[in-house]
Amino acid sequence: MDTTKPRVVIVGGGFAGVAAARALRRAKANVVVIDKHNHHLFQPLLYQVATAALHPGAIASPIRNVLSNQANCRVLMKEVDGVDVAAQTIMLGREPYTYDYLVLATGLETNYFGNDQWKKFAPGLKTIDEAIDVRARFLLAFEQAEFEEDQAAKRAALTFAIVGAGPTGVEMAGSLAEIAETVRKDFRSIDTRTTRIIVLDFADRVLTPYHPELSERAKRDLEGLGVEVLLRTRVTDVDEKGLTAQTPDGEIRIDANNVIWAAGVKGGPLGEALGAELDRSGRVIVGDDLTIPGHPNVFITGDLAFRVDSVTGKPVPAVAQGAIQGGKYAGQIIAAEIKALGRGEPAPERKPFHYQDRGSMAIIGRNRAVVQTGKLRFAGYIAFLMWALIHILFLIDFRTKLVVFVEWVWLYFTGGRGARLITGDDRMPKIIKPPPDFRIAARESNPPAEVAD
Amino acid sequence: MDTTKPRVVIVGGGFAGVAAARALRRAKANVVVIDKHNHHLFQPLLYQVATAALHPGAIASPIRNVLSNQANCRVLMKEVDGVDVAAQTIMLGREPYTYDYLVLATGLETNYFGNDQWKKFAPGLKTIDEAIDVRARFLLAFEQAEFEEDQAAKRAALTFAIVGAGPTGVEMAGSLAEIAETVRKDFRSIDTRTTRIIVLDFADRVLTPYHPELSERAKRDLEGLGVEVLLRTRVTDVDEKGLTAQTPDGEIRIDANNVIWAAGVKGGPLGEALGAELDRSGRVIVGDDLTIPGHPNVFITGDLAFRVDSVTGKPVPAVAQGAIQGGKYAGQIIAAEIKALGRGEPAPERKPFHYQDRGSMAIIGRNRAVVQTGKLRFAGYIAFLMWALIHILFLIDFRTKLVVFVEWVWLYFTGGRGARLITGDDRMPKIIKPPPDFRIAARESNPPAEVAD
Repeated sequence: MDTTKPRVVIVGGGFAGVAAARALRRAKANVVVIDKHNHHLFQPLLYQVATAALHPGAIASPIRNVLSNQANCRVLMKEVDGVDVAAQTIMLGREPYTYDYLVLATGLETNYFGNDQWKKFAPGLKTIDEAIDVRARFLLAFEQAEFEEDQAAKRAALTFAIVGAGPTGVEMAGSLAEIAETVRKDFRSIDTRTTRIIVLDFADRVLTPYHPELSERAKRDLEGLGVEVLLRTRVTDVDEKGLTAQTPDGEIRIDANNVIWAAGVKGGPLGEALGAELDRSGRVIVGDDLTIPGHPNVFITGDLAFRVDSVTGKPVPAVAQGAIQGGKYAGQIIAAEIKALGRGEPAPERKPFHYQDRGSMAIIGRNRAVVQTGKLRFAGYIAFLMWALIHILFLIDFRTKLVVFVEWVWLYFTGGRGARLITGDDRMPKIIKPPPDFRIAARESNPPAEVAD
Repeated sequence: MDTTKPRVVIVGGGFAGVAAARALRRAKANVVVIDKHNHHLFQPLLYQVATAALHPGAIASPIRNVLSNQANCRVLMKEVDGVDVAAQTIMLGREPYTYDYLVLATGLETNYFGNDQWKKFAPGLKTIDEAIDVRARFLLAFEQAEFEEDQAAKRAALTFAIVGAGPTGVEMAGSLAEIAETVRKDFRSIDTRTTRIIVLDFADRVLTPYHPELSERAKRDLEGLGVEVLLRTRVTDVDEKGLTAQTPDGEIRIDANNVIWAAGVKGGPLGEALGAELDRSGRVIVGDDLTIPGHPNVFITGDLAFRVDSVTGKPVPAVAQGAIQGGKYAGQIIAAEIKALGRGEPAPERKPFHYQDRGSMAIIGRNRAVVQTGKLRFAGYIAFLMWALIHILFLIDFRTKLVVFVEWVWLYFTGGRGARLITGDDRMPKIIKPPPDFRIAARESNPPAEVAD
């Protein structure tokens, strides 16, 4: 590798990072993509891993495999511990590592709004490991309820509270309601359909980024699946046994073994280290060209960037499309500058980034989804088909498309979930008791004497 | 559930336990299957999870799903901590739990032959969690080698030592050799084909249960894939950096970041607690009806049982077929006795268990396998096809068959491995250094000045 070429460091191998790297495909540069995970994750479907509909590998591909055909690009699995824009350096552990261009695309973290102690009771859903953890919690809840004698404890085991009624919360609630239906035959002493699923949000409607009509429709669809939707409700405490919340009608207590946190996101320490202005979620406020003031070689793309679009006057939403478009934009700007400078020409003028809103969609359950694109809004079966098609199209490579397609067709026609796997060595549910309705008493005779029908 | 019916407790939801439960399908009994994992595992393909060819869910199904149509059967996810055959009781934590019939089918543990301190350096391969762990180690080895400056360290990262040349060791070595070939394009500074794979065994040939001709063929096939096979070699020490072994020509040292232990198995504490005679591996020596002396209601089936077949005079091998046939036999005996006693008739005489050897097969790599069945022995492409067909046929339900089929077809034609996922929060490879051939020095200018081709 020619070390005299400019070095472009891309931190984060998500939608934005991969799009930036791909846009630099033909650049005479050393491109380095650094991520603490080895895999690119199709995050919009992460809730399906958490609800055992898809296996983890179906929505994750090794970053180095995604970029294997790009000879100017290397992939480094490593956590970035700091950034110094004045010295044009990032820190890999204690080792400084310089860049000519930096694309920071590390995404956002789960935000507990100052109550980080809730984290261990209410996991978030940003990584594959978190999804596998949530999946194990859900599945163990049914295992425990099956053999729980105490009715209140059984009820708490079968109660799932989801904090946050954005796309993740809504999609997870719908998916959970469907699990409860499909695993019914596997259990003997519980009716899994009595599972209580509660979605709480401080807003006055679900899916606030959507048109109010679609929010209303999504809420009705959720309620049709048996999900309770509590709006204008603020969670005031989370503990081992459930949560406390303030509703418009006063304080309520929900005893639930499983609380999932889908309520908010925030920027991480790397964004802070830039020294640039942040919004109140810790996202980095970027200029027209997605760079920070005074550092035209430092691009922030994806969810970590906050930007009011120059054309629409609205903030660019923190969705996959925004990340892909921003990453591609940054990569193209860098590629054009490297090319011009290689020819001894001045860098071309940077046109402002403009976000093309291709629409938004959320799925509530089988045959139920909401879609809005431009002025068009619709819901129901057609929205569901469109949701499935678009998500398949955007999966990162052909193999994952094929796997997801097969698993979905199977799920759709049989209700069978293929990924009901509890892993992790410490998962043994010590709390589960033996079947209560079975005799617990020493016997002496053998073979059995009291055979009855 | 009618608590006056006899209770049949089956400990272990593997091949033997599930076969026993299924044979009790129509019995007027309370059947309880207890396993510490929630899933039935198709163990013969576990090495394919470890080598990223199949994702974990493809070879594991929830036990309660496998048995969901069997109304007389309940599934309990719980570890069994003790057994008292005199009191007809097992211990679930501190709670005693009685049985009328017991089927103990807990399988075997990895045997380090008294050197349990080697375990943390050389994981075994008996559970999904271990396979996921081994997979992460393999994949991280390549990640580390890609950025390792020190040549000896790079060499150690790309050296994999597999202790044990039985079916697991041989199949894993072959599979690893193929990974190294297929991920080649994803790396920039290592040629993954230089990966060194070594299989060590104290025996004088690989695959000792097979005919010597097939052992010889398998060894040649492995060597054709670049695998080194060291026979008559005893491992004398394993540490963080590799292993030491005694060969016929003297002591050797192998520096390898990854050592996998596929060398032996042993019975666990439950087998010991029975008070029955054990063989030197801790397997329970059972009678003609797979029970232990003096306790005709305690059956030991699957790998945990040791038995010399009454017809052939040879030990029943610890393979899936032996477990399935033994479990089915035990379930049928119990079902027949419960039926007779329900009618007030005497229990029918127990015919001795006889193992039907349907043959053995091992795969060495793509298009390479060995098969022996009766007096018939063959190897090569036909053996490979037969291996694939039979393994698909025996996968536990239709869904996993379909998923495995799709993943195998994909792997065969493209070499693409879908399950190259490193999970586990503590996986961050702190040892990986930044790319050595890149400049590590602070720069001042921006945009880049020294653009070259």
